[in-house]
Amino acid sequence: MYPDPASVTRIASLGGGPIGGGWAAHFLARGYDVTAYLHDPSEQEAFHLIVQTGWKCLTELGLAPGAALERLRVVTDLEEALDGAQFVQESAPERLEIKQALYHRMGEIVPPDVVIGSSTSGLMMSDIQATCASPERCVIGHPFNPPYLLPLVEIVGGKKTAPEAVAWAGRFYECAGKAPLLMKKEIPGFVATRLQEALWREALHMVANGEATPEDIDIALRNGPAPRMVSQGQCMAFHVACGAGGMATNLDQFGPALKLPWTRLEAPELTQELRDRMVDGCNAMAGDQHFEEMAAQRDRDIVAVLKALRHSRAD
Amino acid sequence: MYPDPASVTRIASLGGGPIGGGWAAHFLARGYDVTAYLHDPSEQEAFHLIVQTGWKCLTELGLAPGAALERLRVVTDLEEALDGAQFVQESAPERLEIKQALYHRMGEIVPPDVVIGSSTSGLMMSDIQATCASPERCVIGHPFNPPYLLPLVEIVGGKKTAPEAVAWAGRFYECAGKAPLLMKKEIPGFVATRLQEALWREALHMVANGEATPEDIDIALRNGPAPRMVSQGQCMAFHVACGAGGMATNLDQFGPALKLPWTRLEAPELTQELRDRMVDGCNAMAGDQHFEEMAAQRDRDIVAVLKALRHSRAD
Repeated sequence: MYPDPASVTRIASLGGGPIGGGWAAHFLARGYDVTAYLHDPSEQEAFHLIVQTGWKCLTELGLAPGAALERLRVVTDLEEALDGAQFVQESAPERLEIKQALYHRMGEIVPPDVVIGSSTSGLMMSDIQATCASPERCVIGHPFNPPYLLPLVEIVGGKKTAPEAVAWAGRFYECAGKAPLLMKKEIPGFVATRLQEALWREALHMVANGEATPEDIDIALRNGPAPRMVSQGQCMAFHVACGAGGMATNLDQFGPALKLPWTRLEAPELTQELRDRMVDGCNAMAGDQHFEEMAAQRDRDIVAVLKALRHSRAD
Repeated sequence: MYPDPASVTRIASLGGGPIGGGWAAHFLARGYDVTAYLHDPSEQEAFHLIVQTGWKCLTELGLAPGAALERLRVVTDLEEALDGAQFVQESAPERLEIKQALYHRMGEIVPPDVVIGSSTSGLMMSDIQATCASPERCVIGHPFNPPYLLPLVEIVGGKKTAPEAVAWAGRFYECAGKAPLLMKKEIPGFVATRLQEALWREALHMVANGEATPEDIDIALRNGPAPRMVSQGQCMAFHVACGAGGMATNLDQFGPALKLPWTRLEAPELTQELRDRMVDGCNAMAGDQHFEEMAAQRDRDIVAVLKALRHSRAD
């Protein structure tokens, strides 16, 4: 029912804020025709500034063949913006009644085989799509700020979303140069923000208790976990750090330490099922790579990142 | 009482595991004479492999003038290792009775103006130093894995540690090319591991509840928060994302969202005092930089990091 994701050439990006502007810049850089919808003509100047800021970075990263800022059209009429669009990225304000009204209207004017992705970070698709006449093709497509640079897009449907639309969105975002994460369940905060929020709340507790200053928090993150985390997520970082034994060794050896008061977050019961899910997941990611090979790749990545930052800051 | 940190040329590194070996490689690369103590001659081969692995990366990052692998001496006699050392980095096994016995002995043979830094991640200095005859100079100097690459060193004293020793360690580690974090209080998990542990526990909960797989967790982290976090910690990332209003806008606007179920970690009360600490801390870090300048630096950093990773993975 949905067209081939690779055949999409024309995108409507709704919203004139940093997220809508960031998406417009990203899609332009990947060689799409983009029609941007602004709620009000007064948003034009700020919008163009965001697009230009993103464009500069995206040019440095490398544009797709044919990509051009001139392929951006900015309109303040919703129907005009949506006309001919083969994909819609919606970045309207984060208020449920605004989103619901917008999806209600899009349900009437956007053909049902056009997938609509919402940038929302705080709302659930089941709520957003509630009054849309064609809710099957409505998905969350949540970017990470700044959306023109960070690759992650978290994708999940609502109760009325067709699984095919979710799968299509995954393939489409990948075609569009993003790193899609197809979520298993619709949960508040999705995946990345939930993890970040756990860290953020622990940081607030530490500042509240005089255990660290905001500067301490940032020194710790930037010089500790972060340069490794761009290479390996927390799961693979622990898997590789434990050598040949991998995640199994990590959990079997440090499982009891989970109960230590190393954060205010209560640890889950380390059941056999959870242990196996972690171990199997890490083994699947590792494939046939030996841990020494993965540790060497991690080290090459960290060296490259530290050198890149040094140059980026010396300019 | 303690010598000038910049005058240190000779270091004893105790421990033959990945942390001890990593420290030895790091100090060698920064141009120090290093005497490594191994508990048992059988550890030699593995130890040299760790040092060599680290050395390769450190060479790529740039060695200090005069740095040479030949300046490493490996011994299995503790007194010989400590003889003439102007700083001791202790990376013995993470068992309190082993550390206590070691510090008891070092208290007898290491001159009291030589600072001893412990790599421990899970023990408290107040316990480690309990039976040491000269506990004033004993501090935590906790690295992040891999210790030869990641810059962070978390520093904190125990109940009997002199504040001068803690301050000295901060200056010394900085001379030695690390990013020191002088902690305000002795707390389990220190700062970086506490933050990482909060994130890790949330990840385990998500896997336990079928909300994400280990692969999902890692895709989210690597492509979302991580490339930004090497440039800006979570505090400055939020400060800059909120434009001219900074952290004040973030907390005043999103404060209520702290209570949303976006993680299993309970949020602290956002008191006026906590708000002010966060805002003042971020403003102090920002100094006189305008938010647009900081956002541009963040973007340059992310671009550099993404390009560096692309090359690092293509080799």
